[in-house]
Amino acid sequence: MVIKKEIQYSGKAKTLYRTDDETKLIAEFRDSLTAFDGKKKGSLEHKGHYNAAISAHIFKLLEEEGVPTHFECMLSDTMMLVNAVDIIPVEVIVRNIAAGSITRKYPIKEGTPLVPPVIALDYKSDEYGDPMINEDIACVMGIAEREELAVMRKIALEVNKLLIEFLDSKGLLLPDFKLEFGRLNGKIVLADEISADTCRFWDKKTGKSLDKDVFRFDKGDVGRAYYEIAQRILPEI
Amino acid sequence: MVIKKEIQYSGKAKTLYRTDDETKLIAEFRDSLTAFDGKKKGSLEHKGHYNAAISAHIFKLLEEEGVPTHFECMLSDTMMLVNAVDIIPVEVIVRNIAAGSITRKYPIKEGTPLVPPVIALDYKSDEYGDPMINEDIACVMGIAEREELAVMRKIALEVNKLLIEFLDSKGLLLPDFKLEFGRLNGKIVLADEISADTCRFWDKKTGKSLDKDVFRFDKGDVGRAYYEIAQRILPEI
Repeated sequence: MVIKKEIQYSGKAKTLYRTDDETKLIAEFRDSLTAFDGKKKGSLEHKGHYNAAISAHIFKLLEEEGVPTHFECMLSDTMMLVNAVDIIPVEVIVRNIAAGSITRKYPIKEGTPLVPPVIALDYKSDEYGDPMINEDIACVMGIAEREELAVMRKIALEVNKLLIEFLDSKGLLLPDFKLEFGRLNGKIVLADEISADTCRFWDKKTGKSLDKDVFRFDKGDVGRAYYEIAQRILPEI
Repeated sequence: MVIKKEIQYSGKAKTLYRTDDETKLIAEFRDSLTAFDGKKKGSLEHKGHYNAAISAHIFKLLEEEGVPTHFECMLSDTMMLVNAVDIIPVEVIVRNIAAGSITRKYPIKEGTPLVPPVIALDYKSDEYGDPMINEDIACVMGIAEREELAVMRKIALEVNKLLIEFLDSKGLLLPDFKLEFGRLNGKIVLADEISADTCRFWDKKTGKSLDKDVFRFDKGDVGRAYYEIAQRILPEI
């Protein structure tokens, strides 16, 4: 039994609450949807539940494969108990197929297979607009040690391998996804979420988006896309 | 005796000419000044000469220290004979003290010492606005091999060490500079130029800019700054 206390942090799609155990937080997955640094806003019934359930399912799968995460357990359909970690403000983006910003910033066509996978780092900062960063800059800014960044890269590639395999069995491609990490007892662990808000999922046969791109680029029925990805990934929905 | 032939490429401040020897090019350093991706334009008498002479002096100094460059010799006060290299479209930026874009993109104050030095890579492309890139992206774009990028990084750090030492003896700080590289007979060599257009030079005592920042940010008499840096670096001027 964990007692929910005051809000520690409220992000674009999740709210973090302190608990009576200071080593644990509750992450509430909300129904709000935002894109383009918060410039586009919306809301979708059940999205919080779907994303929480997908994240929980993937975190459990990764833990079974030896990948350390902040995940503890689900407390309700949208409330996840997680370990309170010291978040590293670096977004680790892993790309297998070109889509989104990489196709706008560089002469790389959407759909181009990226082999070997591409990893890029963004500095997580609303104020600075999440600019791209590299290991040298992260180190001089004092936000991460070089060794920590190397561990994050290694875990990201391992997560990528495991997710590609898992999603393939569900008839899905994984063009790209974003990870965040934190420090827990001197160890680097996966934090944040892994969901249709933080991954691109494409149907293997049709190439159809089953993720936040449907909201971002008005690609069709957003509710249907989130429901379909939840159904595909989760046996129980 | 080399015979100048048709223009191969005309950049913002240099024109490259083919010669009767297809392994050699002539780089003509022009008096034109541009900043902010060509949005700000100007011209400065003798700038071509000063930059050519500074570049030649530094390339010779680096060659003496074992750093391979494309430099062959000066043909006139603005014409440099160089080896025709296969240019790698990656700008390698080395930073020792925070100045310019790094202070706008991230919460790093101008003047912050960056220890160890920070290296960042930009994809050299007018069309795409020279976006920041990393090793993974350069590799999937096929513009450089991972091993080549490692060699470029190593040379950049060596050049940095040598330049800091040399400039210190002239009473100058080196906040940052940009290098370009090319392939010559299977080897990576330094190309382009090293001048007041591609380096930040600060007077050690006053912190005064003696480089293109005087033009970029209207910091005073541009001609005087270019003349002063040439005088400081070159014994003969």
